[in-house]
Formats: sequence, structure tokens, C-alpha cells
Amino acid sequence: MTQPLDQMHTNPFDDDKLREECGVFGVIGTADAANFTALGLHALQHRGQEAGGIVTHDETLGFNSVRRFGYVRDNFTSAKIMEQLPGDLSIGHVRYSTAGSKGNTAMRDVQPFFGEFSMGGAAIAHNGNITNANSLRKELIGRGSIFQSSSDSECIIHLMARSLQQNIPQRMEDALRRVEGAFSIVAMTQTQLIGVRDPLGVRPLVLGQLGDGWVLSSETCALDITGAEFVREIHPGEMVVITANGVESSYPFRPARPRFCVFEHIYFSRPDSILGGRSVYETREAIGRELAKEAPVEADLVCPVPDSGTPAAIGFSLESGIPYAMGIIRNQYMGRTFIEPSEQIRNMGVRLKLNVNRALIRGKRVILVDDSVVRGTTSRKIKEMILDAGAAEVHFRIASPPTAWPCFYGVDTPDREKLLAATMSEEEMRQHLAVDSLKFISLNGLYRAVGGTDRDSAQPQYCDACFSGDYPVIPSDQISSGFQMKAAE
Amino acid sequence: MTQPLDQMHTNPFDDDKLREECGVFGVIGTADAANFTALGLHALQHRGQEAGGIVTHDETLGFNSVRRFGYVRDNFTSAKIMEQLPGDLSIGHVRYSTAGSKGNTAMRDVQPFFGEFSMGGAAIAHNGNITNANSLRKELIGRGSIFQSSSDSECIIHLMARSLQQNIPQRMEDALRRVEGAFSIVAMTQTQLIGVRDPLGVRPLVLGQLGDGWVLSSETCALDITGAEFVREIHPGEMVVITANGVESSYPFRPARPRFCVFEHIYFSRPDSILGGRSVYETREAIGRELAKEAPVEADLVCPVPDSGTPAAIGFSLESGIPYAMGIIRNQYMGRTFIEPSEQIRNMGVRLKLNVNRALIRGKRVILVDDSVVRGTTSRKIKEMILDAGAAEVHFRIASPPTAWPCFYGVDTPDREKLLAATMSEEEMRQHLAVDSLKFISLNGLYRAVGGTDRDSAQPQYCDACFSGDYPVIPSDQISSGFQMKAAE
Amino acid sequence: MTQPLDQMHTNPFDDDKLREECGVFGVIGTADAANFTALGLHALQHRGQEAGGIVTHDETLGFNSVRRFGYVRDNFTSAKIMEQLPGDLSIGHVRYSTAGSKGNTAMRDVQPFFGEFSMGGAAIAHNGNITNANSLRKELIGRGSIFQSSSDSECIIHLMARSLQQNIPQRMEDALRRVEGAFSIVAMTQTQLIGVRDPLGVRPLVLGQLGDGWVLSSETCALDITGAEFVREIHPGEMVVITANGVESSYPFRPARPRFCVFEHIYFSRPDSILGGRSVYETREAIGRELAKEAPVEADLVCPVPDSGTPAAIGFSLESGIPYAMGIIRNQYMGRTFIEPSEQIRNMGVRLKLNVNRALIRGKRVILVDDSVVRGTTSRKIKEMILDAGAAEVHFRIASPPTAWPCFYGVDTPDREKLLAATMSEEEMRQHLAVDSLKFISLNGLYRAVGGTDRDSAQPQYCDACFSGDYPVIPSDQISSGFQMKAAE
Amino acid sequence: MTQPLDQMHTNPFDDDKLREECGVFGVIGTADAANFTALGLHALQHRGQEAGGIVTHDETLGFNSVRRFGYVRDNFTSAKIMEQLPGDLSIGHVRYSTAGSKGNTAMRDVQPFFGEFSMGGAAIAHNGNITNANSLRKELIGRGSIFQSSSDSECIIHLMARSLQQNIPQRMEDALRRVEGAFSIVAMTQTQLIGVRDPLGVRPLVLGQLGDGWVLSSETCALDITGAEFVREIHPGEMVVITANGVESSYPFRPARPRFCVFEHIYFSRPDSILGGRSVYETREAIGRELAKEAPVEADLVCPVPDSGTPAAIGFSLESGIPYAMGIIRNQYMGRTFIEPSEQIRNMGVRLKLNVNRALIRGKRVILVDDSVVRGTTSRKIKEMILDAGAAEVHFRIASPPTAWPCFYGVDTPDREKLLAATMSEEEMRQHLAVDSLKFISLNGLYRAVGGTDRDSAQPQYCDACFSGDYPVIPSDQISSGFQMKAAE
Repeated sequence: MTQPLDQMHTNPFDDDKLREECGVFGVIGTADAANFTALGLHALQHRGQEAGGIVTHDETLGFNSVRRFGYVRDNFTSAKIMEQLPGDLSIGHVRYSTAGSKGNTAMRDVQPFFGEFSMGGAAIAHNGNITNANSLRKELIGRGSIFQSSSDSECIIHLMARSLQQNIPQRMEDALRRVEGAFSIVAMTQTQLIGVRDPLGVRPLVLGQLGDGWVLSSETCALDITGAEFVREIHPGEMVVITANGVESSYPFRPARPRFCVFEHIYFSRPDSILGGRSVYETREAIGRELAKEAPVEADLVCPVPDSGTPAAIGFSLESGIPYAMGIIRNQYMGRTFIEPSEQIRNMGVRLKLNVNRALIRGKRVILVDDSVVRGTTSRKIKEMILDAGAAEVHFRIASPPTAWPCFYGVDTPDREKLLAATMSEEEMRQHLAVDSLKFISLNGLYRAVGGTDRDSAQPQYCDACFSGDYPVIPSDQISSGFQMKAAE
Repeated sequence: MTQPLDQMHTNPFDDDKLREECGVFGVIGTADAANFTALGLHALQHRGQEAGGIVTHDETLGFNSVRRFGYVRDNFTSAKIMEQLPGDLSIGHVRYSTAGSKGNTAMRDVQPFFGEFSMGGAAIAHNGNITNANSLRKELIGRGSIFQSSSDSECIIHLMARSLQQNIPQRMEDALRRVEGAFSIVAMTQTQLIGVRDPLGVRPLVLGQLGDGWVLSSETCALDITGAEFVREIHPGEMVVITANGVESSYPFRPARPRFCVFEHIYFSRPDSILGGRSVYETREAIGRELAKEAPVEADLVCPVPDSGTPAAIGFSLESGIPYAMGIIRNQYMGRTFIEPSEQIRNMGVRLKLNVNRALIRGKRVILVDDSVVRGTTSRKIKEMILDAGAAEVHFRIASPPTAWPCFYGVDTPDREKLLAATMSEEEMRQHLAVDSLKFISLNGLYRAVGGTDRDSAQPQYCDACFSGDYPVIPSDQISSGFQMKAAE
Repeated sequence: MTQPLDQMHTNPFDDDKLREECGVFGVIGTADAANFTALGLHALQHRGQEAGGIVTHDETLGFNSVRRFGYVRDNFTSAKIMEQLPGDLSIGHVRYSTAGSKGNTAMRDVQPFFGEFSMGGAAIAHNGNITNANSLRKELIGRGSIFQSSSDSECIIHLMARSLQQNIPQRMEDALRRVEGAFSIVAMTQTQLIGVRDPLGVRPLVLGQLGDGWVLSSETCALDITGAEFVREIHPGEMVVITANGVESSYPFRPARPRFCVFEHIYFSRPDSILGGRSVYETREAIGRELAKEAPVEADLVCPVPDSGTPAAIGFSLESGIPYAMGIIRNQYMGRTFIEPSEQIRNMGVRLKLNVNRALIRGKRVILVDDSVVRGTTSRKIKEMILDAGAAEVHFRIASPPTAWPCFYGVDTPDREKLLAATMSEEEMRQHLAVDSLKFISLNGLYRAVGGTDRDSAQPQYCDACFSGDYPVIPSDQISSGFQMKAAE
Repeated sequence: MTQPLDQMHTNPFDDDKLREECGVFGVIGTADAANFTALGLHALQHRGQEAGGIVTHDETLGFNSVRRFGYVRDNFTSAKIMEQLPGDLSIGHVRYSTAGSKGNTAMRDVQPFFGEFSMGGAAIAHNGNITNANSLRKELIGRGSIFQSSSDSECIIHLMARSLQQNIPQRMEDALRRVEGAFSIVAMTQTQLIGVRDPLGVRPLVLGQLGDGWVLSSETCALDITGAEFVREIHPGEMVVITANGVESSYPFRPARPRFCVFEHIYFSRPDSILGGRSVYETREAIGRELAKEAPVEADLVCPVPDSGTPAAIGFSLESGIPYAMGIIRNQYMGRTFIEPSEQIRNMGVRLKLNVNRALIRGKRVILVDDSVVRGTTSRKIKEMILDAGAAEVHFRIASPPTAWPCFYGVDTPDREKLLAATMSEEEMRQHLAVDSLKFISLNGLYRAVGGTDRDSAQPQYCDACFSGDYPVIPSDQISSGFQMKAAE
């Protein structure tokens, strides 16, 4: 019925990209809330393709929930399914799998999670990661809680169940004060839609207005598809409780200086979403322009590595004056699992997804612009295809600094030793990829393109741990498991 | 198991595009021929997404065949299926549905077709259309043939069965001399791979070399994925019979002046395929440059209508100097069937597939470049989205002349009265779409961009019937059904 | 979608039974004809479980057809499928697979077959086998016919297509006169329902009345489910053409003495069907009584081998006075494919389907009554289970003579050398099965129980080739393939 | 993949039968424990057809679990699934749906349930019902437990989680002392297989030996299929903890006089299972004999209502001397969902499953023996079919007393007002069914047939609440919901 799992990653280089693990959406005060949620999740599908879930509440029919593996468009489009989700209040979630939950029990890990308390039920979904989940879990089990999933998010529900507060938002505050990490939450009770961002505001969450109702979403692109108007971003450390009477805002956490995830600007967010008052597309174009200034090179063509390198490549072309061209064509009917003939085809895996525009490339000096290099495996294959097609020179330009540290805040990263930049200098990487030149944008260059100013190394404006190793929230569980933080300099 | 039919059209505006109906591929002289055919068909998937079939021949196991609805990647990737297709000789086919074969008997219409003759079996697949199929069918039934499908192609098999020739290629010649229309054929016997193009060479067919073996394919992009080297195009009116001993060429038809389909350059073929010695991408970029010369306009941004308008938009930008930008973002997880909430969403159908880059577009004068306008329904919706996003002006530039006539040569076209250009002038269309300006490239401009010279109106170099109404092969069956040809001028 | 093949055989010992290969049903003159056909085929499911097909004709919508692998109840019960089958005239077919058509092309072999002639279309389905199909097929291919299936039945359609007669029933007569074998046919044109039995009447076919309409069916049990009244059996060699005006009967074949299949009485037909004016159940009970007279034995219990041995076991008990008991219980949720644990379970295959009533059997002398012994593999395992449970003695009584010859008239029989009785005497079989006694009913005893009189060895009243080797129709194709007829005595 | 829900009830009259809701099985001390559990559950499928689950433990791979809707044979037979269930310790469960858990969250309600405690994990499955589940649930939620299912069984896990005992069997004792109702439990820790019966022993549970290992099962028929030897029944109120060192028995509950469910003898258990040292088949035959003595009638045939009436009908025939015959034939390919033609078929629902043996029945006086009458809907339809077929007289004999009270101990019963015997006397029921006579066995007659002596009305030997309204465990939750107990007499 749904697509096999191995077709679910639609970025051609997913093995070689960081992956956002979740997207959240919620709506209150409109008929057919679940239909809006389905649309919103469809627009957020790039944030998590493995599974999705929607919970609704209807005054007479109570809470209802459907959770499914596979794409939103394959699960939440039939009348049969959507009729199971009545009501004018709804939240939803899309997610990637994490290593811990593979196999047949994984449906238990699909959010939103639901808990029944003395004062009624609540559903909760989050984007991010709780960095002290293991120790919280151990403590809760010792006190008689039964965990049903391997998800870090389930801790929040159990903490809420044990709170002595008499209403659900207060119980959630109680619970969240015990929790460390990065988390943007949407939750719902029978009458309330709730949104929370962690004190540093690492992950995004925005507020929109939909007629007389309200919407919460990870990104603004999901407002556009539902016809909602963008109101504002939820502030770091803010909790909003939305009812028929409107939006109430509070700040339950100890104040902290925001550290928004800079990688949302580089790759995670959709180019048509708005972050910090500007389209992500424009920011990426600006990164490309900055990169052209920092690392110019003489060449005949600027080609993006499709599709995520495209805006930066356009910016690079505009800044440098070198013509932009589609030197690599992506097969829009992607597949991963063809059986290789016994007479092996060189780089068959990449050919299934990409083809070089041979007649165009032949004899040309080509600049390839990509958003990031993680393990470098795909970069190497693309370079080979370009050279096979007869390119005279290949120059890589990367629209982010070297990715040298894993992310523990809701992003799927390879182990540190698998990150190319963790063990090699830029020149070593160039030799490893065997290209004529390789340049990454500098951390300061990135900050300028994104926010206009250099990085404040004392109090950085963003979370850039994946580049700098500077983790704004201590990853306790990971350290218990043996992860070594960067030595103080 | 396979995807539902309504998700199979991946072009966001398929209701508003002409659609190529078929792609063909064949290979001889290599182990695991079917695996190569599967890869080739995957690369040709844009030519037909509804169904696909592969036939193989193995010396000890004889002929085998698998035909399935759905994408190549979903059907011809499992070991279980591919093991049913042993042998070193194989042909395959991808196809669109045609109106006549909808419903539960349609599997009978999925090619390749197979026939058992006294001297052995043969399988055949074609891209194109037989324009006298109805009268041939009637004649054959009268003489005792039993038709199993509603496909025009089945006539060829029955004509071959009744031929008195003693070998299969000669029987095919006999049969094809009775047939009118446009057809590029790949066929196979137990030992031969056969390729034929109709005398005018309306549809493409190319020859490639794969190690010691040979490949036939609708387009060169399928050579690239299999690692085959491009040798040459099969000539109009040529039949090639390929065996272990090499390629034998003959010209069984009355000679005629070639009329290759110009729309292959505009839209059907993949941009990374090579036609006439140049990449289709470059030709489309040249069409965009020509369009910029013919129909310049002052503006802030040149934006493609994704994805097929992209190369022409890049050309337009390069020629005009107006910056290229992605003003419209395509949702890569496309869906068609979400349930619309009762509070209706304006243009919901288009929003599922596209989103306007609002922050970028606001206040700008935007040139939208599209490859063609068929019914105009989508163009109108895109214009509305662009204006809703706050664009100051919208200018449409179309990389083909007005589409005013249906194609009867293997392309799915709406009835003539549904074609916007059949009933309106350019200015009427502009008013209908309510845009600031609308310009189509001229027929001469198109010819110059594609081939370097103006159209020879006495003996046009291409088939351009969809623009000109000048049909190089009389569409007999359609005329019998009431179609009115263009009055002689 | 459909059930896996390995769950399709619901008789627990199907490997050790002869299998009827087909059931046919047709109806004319009632709204929703296909719904009646679906019900009729459901009642005939025991005659063929692998696949089923229904064709209908509607005045405005013409012919429609759905053919599917799997049970009738799984395929022809949804509104979605049945809406594709409008009209007041319909025929249908259920079938077993035959060795030749396994694999992915088998859907082509699912009946009814359809042919379009100059004077209109016709659909045809049959129960039986054409014994000269191979030579007919060769001749037809030589003359230019294209075969689409490996089914013997397709010959009839091609012979009809080449007939010079001007209406379809006459073309069918033409065709059937060329055909040898055993066949009960239901066919339909746009306005006619046609039924034919071969000259010997080997396979059954009955006529029923359904309100103002008419029904044809392999057995009367399908009349009961549809509420039709039983009218009469179609006579051997008779063709009936049924229209709005009623039933017209003709006898197109050379007259012959009837030879109805005696095995229909023993095993193939359902016990609630009526054959020769008496319920099949009563005939089987009479066989059991006759067996008790011919082969009495002292014992404590008479137990049937479920389910087909039940009526004969009841008859044996009533005649002998030995109490009837269910010593073997059939698991109604049968399975075939459990994974055997590494500590192997003795006779696991049989245990999945049967269990001995241990507490009942212990210390008892048990008579086991079965309908037939084909390969003897299951009989042996059942005997072991009974002895394991502590039975004092085991006596087998078989309600048919030894099965020593294959059937070529539409029944799936093992090769002759696999038939236990082809190579062993009764005493050798007893030793092989290691039971205290083993007795088969005599051929004369069987004839008396079925028809009241002994077998007329000069002109036998039934086809009993599987017991006697006396084949009433020469199996030409099989003789060409090396089958050795019984030497004349 | 699995069968649709509406095909899952294989008893032809499931709407008109009481239904056992669960079967349990467990095994320790043998390789491939899950394969044995799958076989055991297959043999117990009649106790629950909606869903099944298996949990295993392996020393290196820990706990694993698969739970699925549908038949055991469809879910637990593939290598792919069974490989997910490694280990030499396993428990499993089959279940019916209960009203509360219909819909898309029901997978949460499929047992076994799993809980992770400080000292390790445990899985638990039970057959029966907890009659104070609602009040326990409310209390536990108030103290911070999060329930994940609507199942009463989940209470046990939460009570265990909150116990202060230091090992799991002791925690289970703690929990079970808080629980009221009828429950036969199988549970497992990493090293122990645990079995418990409630103090009254309402539901069955038996112990078997399998090589060096041990088996627990609801019925002995599951021992037979796995090749295990029957050892003994677990005693009412007994807990057994089985490890590598053998079986340890304890009696944690306050002693009580046993009240085994008498309906297990009448209908729930399989006829080849052993209860109280005798096969259930023999007990049912004895009930039939007793019924023949209590309620004789002159007639020509004794026919069972298939299949559950068969043993009692055989007993009735043996006692009365009236011949036993299969007057009603069950269609072994049952379906529920055929589309009724617009010309309606009388009693179509029943015809799909049964057919009267018309030729046999015509003109006869027929005794129909059924095991029970619940709502009477099916009895009425069968009577009509028998009369339509021309029977001279119809006499119903029922092998149980009138079912006048719902069961609250793990059986799916209609509401009391739907039970025919709750509102009508025997004579009123006879008139309602419009038969010539109708007799139920007396409660004392039933007791004599089952146990040899009359009912001790002061201290009944069995639970017979469904007949007598005498509930041995107070159904607290039901009384809170408005159920009215029988007034004291």
C-alpha cells in the first residue's frame, strides 16, 4: 500500500546529507482540522519521510489518531482515513527513523504521543531531541512508569503524568523544566493548541492565522499550502496556549541567548520558507554570492549539484558572471534498487538518480556548487561522472563550512569518524576527491550571508556545533555513551 | 503493490501538457539483458508512466515476459521479477494510457506484444501511432484474426502472421508496408534485435554499443545509464537487424523527406539527451535566447515554470541580462488527492505541487517562462498565485508557438476545441490569462533555434502539425471519425 | 491482493486427490447477471480454486470482463469490481492451474475467452479437455492465427473465427465438430446464452430457471444458492441456445452412447448437488453401504477421513451397525506453510490440517473410510497418526476402485507411475500402508451403488478410465507425447 | 496482505454464537520457540481470529515481538517474520476484538503486553476478563500511569510496575491479588515461563512437556500439533514458574471452590481437546445422548447444524436409533460479502455458507441438533431453508440450556435483551422459530453428561452464569455501568 522504505528518501544523496528528523504542524478553530494538518505535513515532508501521524479532537467523538509509515500523500488522502479524524483541533508530525527504532516495533515510535491524565487527554509531537532522555527514562521506570516506545519524547508524557499540577499546560511546564535539549513542540488538549520552543530556540516554529483559527508549523511553506497568513515566529523559550479566546504567551524557562540552527538556512528548510524575514532561497543565493567572493575561480560554467545546491549556484553565477547551467540532470523518477547486470556499470547507484549533460559539459571548466559535504562519497562519484563526460576542469564550491561534528539536536548525522572534515584538512579533502580545487565558505562568511555580521565567538548568534564543535546544550546521554567533546582551546 | 494510477503523473501540470505516449529500448549480446532494459526504461520513464513491459529470450528457457502497471522502479527491481527474465536478448516498453484502453482489460494493451509464428516467436514494441489501424483491424477480423487488445500495434503482429515470407524480418517488412503513421519499433526474434523508423522518422530511435553487444533506445539518456556508447541515430525509413554478426541495415520503404517531431526538442525528450548532435538542454536554452530577442520586456526577474520551463528561462536570462531566479518552488513529494477542507483553499490543486517564493516575488516585475500552453488552465492558476504573492507585473513567455492542432502520431492531445490556441488569438489568450503580456516564440524563431534556418514552408524540415496543422501523414482513422483537416490556404 | 497460491487448496490432502479443473456458470434474462454468476461460481469453487473470470454483456455498455487469481469471494464481492460487470447476460468460470501455465503469463489462461468476429463478439468457457488441441493449434498457427494463451480452449475461438458461417452458434458447431475430448461449454453472444455438452456427456451441465431468466451450471448446488429452480440436465451431445424467446435445443454431433464421469459421483461434485435424480450425498452413502457388504470387518468405530470420506463412512456405519465417530478432526483454519522447528515434528504437514481425537481412539479397532487412494502418501500419514494415538487396529475401506490410470478429460492426475494402484496389487498396497486390512469397492459394486446395475463391460455406462484404463475418447495429444494405452486384453 | 476483517469469522453463524475471546500458549527450553508458539496458536485459532501476537526472548538479542491482525497462518508462517522472533522462550496470544477497541488504534490492544521494569522486562498474555479493570485503571491514572491500550489486561502490567517486590513473579502475585475476574495467564521474563489460573479456574490452562522443555496452552489440541505430551491441567488458583530447573508451583490466592466454565464443554473448546480426562467430543456426544433421553421425538433423520452441532447429533442418533445424516452442507469456501442482485435472494446470507441437501430432506421429518441458541436469528433461517426444501417436520434439539445471561469472563455475548431466552419461555421460542418442536437440555442433564452428577445448587460445580445468572465473581465494572444482577430468589 505504502511505498517500500527504501524508496522513501528522495534526495539523491541522502546517504551523504544531514537529515532533519521531524516536522510538526497544528491547527485550532477550523472545521476539518485534519485536512489542513495533512496538507501542512505534506508541505513539511522534506523534514521527515519515514512516517507521519495526525491526532484530532472532536467534541462528541473525542480524540482520534492515525499513524502510518510512508508519505503523507499516500496515507492521509483517502476519505476512509480522513473520516477517522473528525474535529476542529488537530496536530500532526512527520519523522525520519532513528537508528534505535528500526524493525517491527517502530510504529510505537511514530508521533504524536498520547497520554490520558486525570483531567483529560493530551497529545504531543516534537521536532528536536532530548539530550538527557536516557537518565530521565531510567528514573521514571524505577518509579513505576511503563514505557511503550524507544522515543525520547515519551519522557515528556510520563513527566506530565506524574506532575501534581491541575491543568495540562502547567503539567507540561513542569515536565519541560526537567528536560534538556532542543525541542519545538506542538501539543493539544481537548480545547487547547499548545506550542513551545526550547530556551535557545534551536529548532523553528511559526504561528499563522487561518480565518478565525490558528496554525503552528515548523516552517512557513506549510502556511502557504493551507492558505494561512504568517503572523510571527514563536520566540525561543516561549510557550503559547491557543484557545477559542486567542493566543496566550508565557516564558516558563530561565532566559537564555538564542542559538537558532544555522543549518536550517543552509539545507533543512525549504527554499520558499521565510526565516528571519527573508526567503531561505535568498539567503542561499547570498551564501553563493559570498562564496564567489571568498573563493573565485576562472571557469566556463557554474553548475549546481541538484537540487539542494541550486540557489547557491545561482548566487555564485550572479556574483561571478560565469554562466549558470544545468550540467547535471536529476532523474525525476528516482529509484534505488535496480539489479546491477553482471557486467557492472560504473557508479550505477548515482546514475539511477543523476545524469551528466554530456554534450554540454565536454571540454568545459566546470564549477560544481553543493550545499555541504558530509562523508564525501557522493561528491566523489559526481566528480567522476563529470570527468567521464569530458570536462576540462572540476572545481567544487561548498555553501557551508566543513561539517566536522555530529548534531545531537534532532538531526541524523553519521558518527564523527565518518565525517570527512573530522579527519582531513581542506587540501586533504581536495586530494581525496581528486578535483582541481575545493573551497568551503568560511564560518564568518556564512554568518555574514545569513545575518549580516561576523560570528561573535564569545556568544555565537547561531548553533553551529556541526561546524565548530561548540555545543550550546551539553549532550549528556551521548557523553555517557562515550562521545568526546572538543577540548577547550 | 504498485502506486495508484492517480499518482503516476509526475509532471505537476500533466493535465495541461502534451504527453509522449511511449518509450522503447532493446539490447542484444550481453548477459542479464533484462537488467539493462530495466535501467534503460527507467531512464525513459518520462515518455510513459502508466505501464511497462519487458520480454527476453534465453536459449534454453525460450521467451519470457513480464508486464506491469506502474513505474519501472516499482516493478522491475526485485530479484523475484528479474529472475523471470533470463537471457541475453531483450526488449522493453513504457507507455501512457490512451483513452480507449482504460479499465480492467488494459493489461492486454501493455506492450511488448508477442506472436508465435510457424518459424518461431517474435516480440514487438513501438512508439508512435498507426493512423490506419481501424481499417486494418476490420479487414483482419473479417479474415479470421482474433484481436486480444485494443492497441493499434496488434495489427502489425496479425499482418506478420499472415505474411507468406519465410523469415521474421521479411514478414515485418511485409506488415509495415501496409501500415501508415509514425512508428519507431524495436522487435526481437530468438536471435535478432530489430529496429525500424517510419519513412518520415517522426519519432526518435538511436543505436548504441554496449561492450560486444548493441542497444536500441528512444533517447540517448538511456544509453548513458547503461554505460553504452552512442553510435548514431537510426535513419528515417531504415530497418536494422542486429545479430551476433553485427548490424545489417536496409531501407524497405519508399524514400521520403524526413519530418522529425519538433516537439521532441521542446518538451518530450529529456534535456540530457542528444538530438542532432547537440544536447536538448542547449537547444532549449537557445529557444529561450531566441524568445528573448523576439519578445523582450523590462522586468526584475526571469522565473521558470518548473521544471520543463527551466532551460528556456536560463536562456532568456542570459540573453536579456535579467537575473534568473526560482520564483516558483516545486514540491518534490507530489500528491494529487488530498481532501479539500470545507473552508476551501484557493487553487488547492496547484498548491499541492507548487509554491510561490513569496518573499522573493513581492513587488517584483516577473517574467514567467514556460515550454508550452495547451489548455491554459495551469498557466492561469500560476499567474494567480504569483499575483497573490504580491508581484507587480506578470509577463508570460512561451518557448513554443501556439499549440492549435492535435497530434495523431503517438502523443496524447486534448480534442482540438480544448486547445486554447485553436480558438483564440495571442491577444485573446493574454486577456483570458489576465497577464501584463504574453508572447509565444514564432515558428521561424523556433526553427532557427532548433536547426539554424527558417522553416521551409514548401517542404518543412520538421513535423510541426500541432502548431501548423500541416500533417505529413494523413490521419485516416481520425478523418473517418470526423476530424476536420485544415482547409488548404 | 489475492491470496498466495499456497493457501488456495483447501482440501487437506490435495496432493493426494484427483482434482476437477473447472466449473462453469451462465445466466440470461435477469438484472445484475454478474451478481448471480459470482454466487454461482462461489458455489462451484470446489471445482477450481486457482482463478475465476466473469464476462457480461449490456446493451449500451457492450461486453465487459474481469478475471482474477484467487477465490471468488475475494475477487467478485466488492461494489468496485461488480460495477465493472453490468448487464443481464453473463457467463463465468473457475479453474485450477494446469502444469503448463504456471508463472507470470498465466492470467492469459484464465477463462472465459473472448473473440471479436465480423458479426460481433462471443465469450466462451469450458470444463473438460480437448484431446487434439496440440495438432489443431499447430494447424491454426500455420494459417496465421495468433495464440494468446497456452489453453486448449483457445482453439475453439480460432476455429470459430475462421468458420464461414454467418452466425455465432453455427460457427461454434463448425468449430466443435473439429474438436475431440470432453467438454461442457457455456458461451455467450450479445443476445444468446449457449450451452453444449460433448457427445459422450463426460462432464456435467444443468439447466435452471431463474424467474423469467435461465441459468446454466456445472452442478445444481449453484442453482440453489441463486434461488434458481432445477429444470433438467443438458443431454450428452446437445447444444442449447437461450434467448429472450426461450430455450432452443439441437444435436449437432454424431450420436454416441453416453459415458458420464463416474468420479463426479465419488468425489468431484458437491454432496448437496443432484445427479441422476438423487443427491450425491445419498449415492455416496450407498457406496459406503455397498462397501460394508463387500468388505466387512469387526471393529469398534467407523471414522471418516475428513471431509470427503464422510458420507461413505455414514453409509458404512448404517449398514454394518458399527458406531460412527469423528476420530479425526479437521482444523478449520488450514495452513500449509508453517516453519518447522529444528526439533522436527513427526508428520507436521498433516498435523496442520488434522488432529486425531486421541482420547476417543485409544485402544479401539478403527475402520477409516476414504473416498479414494491416489498416491497413498496421505493415507500412510493418517494411519501413523491413528496408531500413535493408541488405536488397536486400523482398517482402511476405500469408496472407489483402485485409481490406476490418469484422466485426460479435464482432471488433474499425477503421472501414471505415481499412482499407487498402477504398480501394486491390493495386498501390496496394504503392506505399503502397513494397515491391518485394506479394501477397495469393486467396479461392479460401485456401478450398483451409483446406478443400480453391474458394469456392462461391452458398453460401459460411465467413463471409468481412471479405474479401468478404458478411454472412451482417444487421447491423441497424450499418445503423441508418449502415453501408452492399456494393451487390448 | 492479511485477509479483510469481514472474512475472519469462519463459523457460519458467528453473529449467533457466543465467542471465546482468547487463546494463550507459551513454551520454554527448546530452540525455535516461536515456531512452536505459531503452531500452538494455529491450533487455538478457534478461540480468537481477529489478531495474534508472539513475544520471544533470546539471550543475546533480548525480547522481540510481532503482533498482527489476521490469522496465524497468514502472519506467522514466513521466514521473514519468524526470523524476527529468535530465542528458546516464547509466549503467544490469539484474540477476538471487543467492542471497545474497534478502529485504527486497535493494534495497541493486541497482546502480549510488554513492560520494562527496573529488574528487566516481562511479557504477559491472558484469556479471560478483569471485572474491576475500570476502577483499577482510574486509580492508576490518578497516580501517574500512562495507559497505551483500552485493554483490561494492561492494568496488570501497571500494577506490576508499581509493586515494591524485587522479582517479577512476586510482582505478578502482588498485581493479581488486586485483580478480580476470570483469567488464565501466560507470562515470561528473560528466564521464566509463568502460568496462572484465577482462584475459580474459570478458563482452562494445561501443562505439557516438549522434549526437555515445557509448554503452557489453553487447550490440549495445541500440545498435539507441537508434539508435546499432556502432563496435567494447571489447578485453579495455581501459579507455575518454569525455568531450566523445572516447574515450581505455588498458590498465591485465597482458596476457593473451583467453577470451571461449562460452556467450554459445550462449544468453546475443540472437540479433540481433553477436558477432565475425556475428549470434548465424547462429552458432546454424551450431551446428545442425554438430550435424546430427555426430549425424544419420532422422526426420519437426525441432522446436525454444522459444524458445532455434529457430535451432539451423532450422540442423539446413537441413543435414539434414528439415522444420522448430513441434511445441511456447509460451503467450505465461506464468504460474507457478495453483492445481492436487485432481484433479491431469500436468506442469501445463510445460503453463502450453507445449503440444504434438498433431495435428501424432501418429505422427511427432521431433527436438527444445534449446540446453543443465542439470538435465534440463524436458527430461524435454517428452519426456513429446511422447510423450503420440502421437509415434513422440523424439530430443534439444543445441546445446552437456554442462554439467558451475558458472560463477563472473557466471552463476547450480546446485551441481555438480545438473548432470545432472556425474554421468552421455551414455548414462546418455539412459536418464534415456528418449528414443530423445540427442546433444550436441562441444566441437570447437562451436568450429568459433563460430570456424571446433578448440579449442586448450593455450590455449583461449574460456572454456568450464562444459563443460571449465578455469577461466581461479582462483575463490578458492569454493575457500575448499569447491569442488573438476577434478584435473589
